[in-house]
Amino acid sequence: MRPNTVKSITRNHFLEVRHQTELICKSLKPEDVSIQPAVFVSPPKWHLAHTTWFFEQFVLSNYKSNYSVFNNDYAYYFNSYYNNVGERVIRANRGNMTRPTLEDVLRYRTYVNNHLAEFIEEGISDEISDVIEIGLHHEQQHQELLIYDIKYIFGNQPSFPVLDYNVQLQYENREQEFLKIEEGIYHIGHNADDFCFDNELGRHKVYLHDFEISNRLVTNAEFIEFIEAGGYQNFNLWHADGWEFVQNNNLKRPLYWHKVNGKWMHYTLNGFVEVNGNLPVCHMTFYEAFAYAQWKGMRLPTEFEWEVSSNKFNYGQLWEWTNSAYLPYPNYTKVEGALGEYNGKFMVNQIVLRGASVATAKKHSRSTYRNFFQADMRWQFSGIRLAR
Amino acid sequence: MRPNTVKSITRNHFLEVRHQTELICKSLKPEDVSIQPAVFVSPPKWHLAHTTWFFEQFVLSNYKSNYSVFNNDYAYYFNSYYNNVGERVIRANRGNMTRPTLEDVLRYRTYVNNHLAEFIEEGISDEISDVIEIGLHHEQQHQELLIYDIKYIFGNQPSFPVLDYNVQLQYENREQEFLKIEEGIYHIGHNADDFCFDNELGRHKVYLHDFEISNRLVTNAEFIEFIEAGGYQNFNLWHADGWEFVQNNNLKRPLYWHKVNGKWMHYTLNGFVEVNGNLPVCHMTFYEAFAYAQWKGMRLPTEFEWEVSSNKFNYGQLWEWTNSAYLPYPNYTKVEGALGEYNGKFMVNQIVLRGASVATAKKHSRSTYRNFFQADMRWQFSGIRLAR
Amino acid sequence: MRPNTVKSITRNHFLEVRHQTELICKSLKPEDVSIQPAVFVSPPKWHLAHTTWFFEQFVLSNYKSNYSVFNNDYAYYFNSYYNNVGERVIRANRGNMTRPTLEDVLRYRTYVNNHLAEFIEEGISDEISDVIEIGLHHEQQHQELLIYDIKYIFGNQPSFPVLDYNVQLQYENREQEFLKIEEGIYHIGHNADDFCFDNELGRHKVYLHDFEISNRLVTNAEFIEFIEAGGYQNFNLWHADGWEFVQNNNLKRPLYWHKVNGKWMHYTLNGFVEVNGNLPVCHMTFYEAFAYAQWKGMRLPTEFEWEVSSNKFNYGQLWEWTNSAYLPYPNYTKVEGALGEYNGKFMVNQIVLRGASVATAKKHSRSTYRNFFQADMRWQFSGIRLAR
Amino acid sequence: MRPNTVKSITRNHFLEVRHQTELICKSLKPEDVSIQPAVFVSPPKWHLAHTTWFFEQFVLSNYKSNYSVFNNDYAYYFNSYYNNVGERVIRANRGNMTRPTLEDVLRYRTYVNNHLAEFIEEGISDEISDVIEIGLHHEQQHQELLIYDIKYIFGNQPSFPVLDYNVQLQYENREQEFLKIEEGIYHIGHNADDFCFDNELGRHKVYLHDFEISNRLVTNAEFIEFIEAGGYQNFNLWHADGWEFVQNNNLKRPLYWHKVNGKWMHYTLNGFVEVNGNLPVCHMTFYEAFAYAQWKGMRLPTEFEWEVSSNKFNYGQLWEWTNSAYLPYPNYTKVEGALGEYNGKFMVNQIVLRGASVATAKKHSRSTYRNFFQADMRWQFSGIRLAR
Repeated sequence: MRPNTVKSITRNHFLEVRHQTELICKSLKPEDVSIQPAVFVSPPKWHLAHTTWFFEQFVLSNYKSNYSVFNNDYAYYFNSYYNNVGERVIRANRGNMTRPTLEDVLRYRTYVNNHLAEFIEEGISDEISDVIEIGLHHEQQHQELLIYDIKYIFGNQPSFPVLDYNVQLQYENREQEFLKIEEGIYHIGHNADDFCFDNELGRHKVYLHDFEISNRLVTNAEFIEFIEAGGYQNFNLWHADGWEFVQNNNLKRPLYWHKVNGKWMHYTLNGFVEVNGNLPVCHMTFYEAFAYAQWKGMRLPTEFEWEVSSNKFNYGQLWEWTNSAYLPYPNYTKVEGALGEYNGKFMVNQIVLRGASVATAKKHSRSTYRNFFQADMRWQFSGIRLAR
Repeated sequence: MRPNTVKSITRNHFLEVRHQTELICKSLKPEDVSIQPAVFVSPPKWHLAHTTWFFEQFVLSNYKSNYSVFNNDYAYYFNSYYNNVGERVIRANRGNMTRPTLEDVLRYRTYVNNHLAEFIEEGISDEISDVIEIGLHHEQQHQELLIYDIKYIFGNQPSFPVLDYNVQLQYENREQEFLKIEEGIYHIGHNADDFCFDNELGRHKVYLHDFEISNRLVTNAEFIEFIEAGGYQNFNLWHADGWEFVQNNNLKRPLYWHKVNGKWMHYTLNGFVEVNGNLPVCHMTFYEAFAYAQWKGMRLPTEFEWEVSSNKFNYGQLWEWTNSAYLPYPNYTKVEGALGEYNGKFMVNQIVLRGASVATAKKHSRSTYRNFFQADMRWQFSGIRLAR
Repeated sequence: MRPNTVKSITRNHFLEVRHQTELICKSLKPEDVSIQPAVFVSPPKWHLAHTTWFFEQFVLSNYKSNYSVFNNDYAYYFNSYYNNVGERVIRANRGNMTRPTLEDVLRYRTYVNNHLAEFIEEGISDEISDVIEIGLHHEQQHQELLIYDIKYIFGNQPSFPVLDYNVQLQYENREQEFLKIEEGIYHIGHNADDFCFDNELGRHKVYLHDFEISNRLVTNAEFIEFIEAGGYQNFNLWHADGWEFVQNNNLKRPLYWHKVNGKWMHYTLNGFVEVNGNLPVCHMTFYEAFAYAQWKGMRLPTEFEWEVSSNKFNYGQLWEWTNSAYLPYPNYTKVEGALGEYNGKFMVNQIVLRGASVATAKKHSRSTYRNFFQADMRWQFSGIRLAR
Repeated sequence: MRPNTVKSITRNHFLEVRHQTELICKSLKPEDVSIQPAVFVSPPKWHLAHTTWFFEQFVLSNYKSNYSVFNNDYAYYFNSYYNNVGERVIRANRGNMTRPTLEDVLRYRTYVNNHLAEFIEEGISDEISDVIEIGLHHEQQHQELLIYDIKYIFGNQPSFPVLDYNVQLQYENREQEFLKIEEGIYHIGHNADDFCFDNELGRHKVYLHDFEISNRLVTNAEFIEFIEAGGYQNFNLWHADGWEFVQNNNLKRPLYWHKVNGKWMHYTLNGFVEVNGNLPVCHMTFYEAFAYAQWKGMRLPTEFEWEVSSNKFNYGQLWEWTNSAYLPYPNYTKVEGALGEYNGKFMVNQIVLRGASVATAKKHSRSTYRNFFQADMRWQFSGIRLAR
């Protein structure tokens, strides 16, 4: 969040990132972009507009003289959770807004893009460049959420549409090894010149004890063994809250999985296909990740163990659940003003995931990045790496 | 339901009724047709498809040789509540179906229209003609629901779109008179050659005592008096269930009403406008209609009183709440098969409304028609006629 | 409610009715009297106190000079639903009041009994006598509710205590006959000198068509046939709301029934015993009664049919569901003041039951009595009589 | 949990701890012991029986030859959450069990006490002594819960009974100082011969940075300043989840507080009294503790900071919220069998509290003890210590 970058944002980079969002939505029909099948899903149209509002609110309205907003009501419609910026449509009602239409929202994007590109061309201060950079990282986070939400929208209607997304996982079938890390003092947190969010700052020391961490993720084939061994029925493997989640949801398999004629099938962005045993298991809740590790007699790594060892393995296919709660680093301080609501206020009841996923924006993955979700969330692209 | 008509359905009449449904949807964008802001609302796209499925299922598939269904999955998507015809998408999830798109659904309509028009041309039996007639009445009922749903969709999003619907109420400002009806035996139920539903049959006698009934509906100006006299705060005017409804919903005004700068405004299909005191008050729950009558020291008529006196006043602006529960007439018998689910299974916990509304299909209003809703429903076009 | 009695209440009669309430509670331990296992159940201690408060509020405080209330807080604790008499503990929280204790409440009863008995001895006006009579009928209604609630409290805890209640049903195994009633005008409503409630008044004429009604109730043996024929699985037999109730509650058998080692057992106030096929089936919801009648190809009688034919059969074992909604009779008028809340405000969304049950107070059953419950209630002693 | 004690349990110690539980319940009437006003509260009778069942199940049934259980059903009634020991009454229904009565449960306690005292007398192995020690610590934890639950039961009924409990807080009005701790490696976890739970084991090193911690708790007077400064209305002070909790519960003051005629009053176990500004503020949720610290421009300590500095200040009045999630220490291992369910399965979505409270059993407080609750719990005796 508080970028310590020195290079100024270019017009081309800005437009490239913005264009990527529209590319992600290119297979969507107007009917697809307005619905909200669950409270944690936002309509794609909302993402398209909200990321635009962010630039209009925090850059153009704040800094560009004589800027006239595209539509006075959009701040109310498309604010997400910034209490400091005024009233907003409550999250659960985002799916009720059929108007403005997709076409209106795309015109809004063009309008703001044009003004912001022109503004960059005119020359901007470092302060403004920094806010734009935050806005682009924010947009890239929404690009990833868009992919989760689109999959959820299509994965929860009866027709299972086939799309042409190129979001492909790679095999994780290399030989499993456990990498050993030695006890000692390690440094944690971001320490480079490039962009990072405020929750990665406050670089500090932690003391780690000896541990071992797997060189690869758990595969679908391995997770099927867990299912077939009765993992979803054995309460001893689960947290108390996890077991309640299993029972309340009658949970017996990962999200999007169906057993059809004895075969495990699942919905993917390329249609309804057979589960491939060599690919990493995806859409895990923290509860499932934990139960699987218990069943293997191992555990999940802490976020510190993960960060310290991350140079020894490949990551970036799926976000990896750690056994660390999302908490502030020593000396963490909230940014003043509305942007201070970006991270700090979520530091309770959530769990850190590390790495990145195939849905993550390019060049947006780094070893210090702290992603976070509640333990029961599973529409994100999340997998399991074991430690012991 | 069981038509005792003798004239056979014509191709032109069929196509005209079908076309009317599309006219009602002509101002809608694809974004507008897929959402479901409340469980009692269906997405407009669903109405367009469901009414089509009705003809495909009950006419073409049953009677037309070599008919091939447009899409095998549509029966599952667009069945409403006919348990006898198989599984279906549950009502609360209708809003999750972004596919098939509006364009797909309009092609479905054309496909079925063409086949059915051709089928009529070839000559059909009376039995088939009767089923088509039911289908057309069914479609006309959905035309009215479409108007309720469209208003609800637009009345519950922040932008209050202005549409160009021609659904206009007339003034109810004539002098109020109470028409007197004498005690005696009266005949109730449908008794003509034209179409009626099964719930109107079983013509029978009832004994009515002396009563008086108003020659017009309650107006907005009159209802504002009730509001200003504290009607929504006076528990003595309400049923126990009504008072609970008032408190749970913090009810203080009719649906779609807002007080802006001291003036009563409301959302209509022609935009957000000031409430006109001469028009009849609309969107009443049964609870509000009852409380208003109590406050006036009067009551609502029974459905029998209404039917017997209906030739003495004008009706057809708004459905009129009666104080009669929706129950079978003596000798009521459910039709065999799926169409038997049309009416009978709703005969508990609902209340009869009589008359018709400006949203009712032309020539679809008659003095024996029994409409019915739960006491807390108010998105339909419903008003108040007093009796004593 | 508006008694047209002429005889004044005697001290002995008053004390006798009051004593009966305590007799019903004699097997209860202090632990048993404070709990509320469902929102429609009241703790027995609450019944004991509430019926006492009724006399204190409506008789002693209103009419007896220098009367000093037992405890100023009790009006707040023990008012049921009389909005006109002030604030009260909300219904769902009655079970949280462990204090006052049972002992305190019994002292409260004695205190009020003594004052009221003395007051009667001193000589009271007809007006006061009438209010006391209402209070005694009110208390007798609570005596019946107490039996329902006690059964529910014990029937929903794992130990199934055996009590020594003498609430015994009689065999209904006489030969079934259908009594024929002829079409014509009949008089409905209370028409005698003795006590009745306001909802029975407004004697009026109804026109009935020919019908037949059974001379006895449906038995357990008959209902087991319905279960075994798949009655709980056949949606065609149920109202839409009834079918939803069946599915939401996974309903497969009457309340208190369990199948143990292939035998139907049920909890009764005399313990957990085998279901006796000759006894009438009890604890029916309206939905179950309706579905059973559908399955037999018959129907439930209306309340008017029941009243007109009731002199031709025995009744009084179980309350009998009719197919009539609970609505006001012509010319029904609500009593002024708090007692006006007794009946009128419940006249929506409820269904009339006629007759009486083995739990009904002696001499408290008459052919014009209108009992009423929601369609899904079943802890009351309710059965089925068929008509056609 | 895994005691590394060496001294064997004595008969007297056993009976003394058991007697203390009964002393806590001595002011309770039978009516008070069976209710459950919230799902997190257990009826006092349940605590009395459950702690007894623990000894019967894990000691007498497992180890004492020829022991015959008091009642075969009690294991089902009084198991809390040990899935490994079989079925049980679900938590939310504990309040429905009016039987067995308090008298029955007290006889159960005597029966088990006698058998266990006799068993100790006969001489027991170290293994058995260890299980008894766990049982006593378990009982002492329930003694504290009993006090919370009793306060909740009486604090949520309208009569606010005055009891004679001697659970008195002391003034926290000493001058505030911030104690400085230097950066470095510290050892965390239990390291002595006496009893501890399994979650305290796995002694290990942590690296702490410089910090300062207050020498005393936040007082009521200080918290009233927060209230009066609008702390409950300022969303910037709260976590997102905390702000939702504030809004959903319309939270404006601590649990049990009421403003009466301009004065802050609260319910205590000695009745309804004025809030004393010199006493520490109690019944804090984690959300309130965090918001208060934010408002002061400080923070809550981590559990490691707390443990390391705890020899420098007094503690033991109230449990102190830390900013640490409840997670396993390195090398934490769950005990085999049912007792393994004691701690580990709660290590998600909960927050650590350190110290002890005036309701904690004597000699049961130590610097390594890890208590834990969800962030929104507040019926426990919890306060705030600031750090920076």
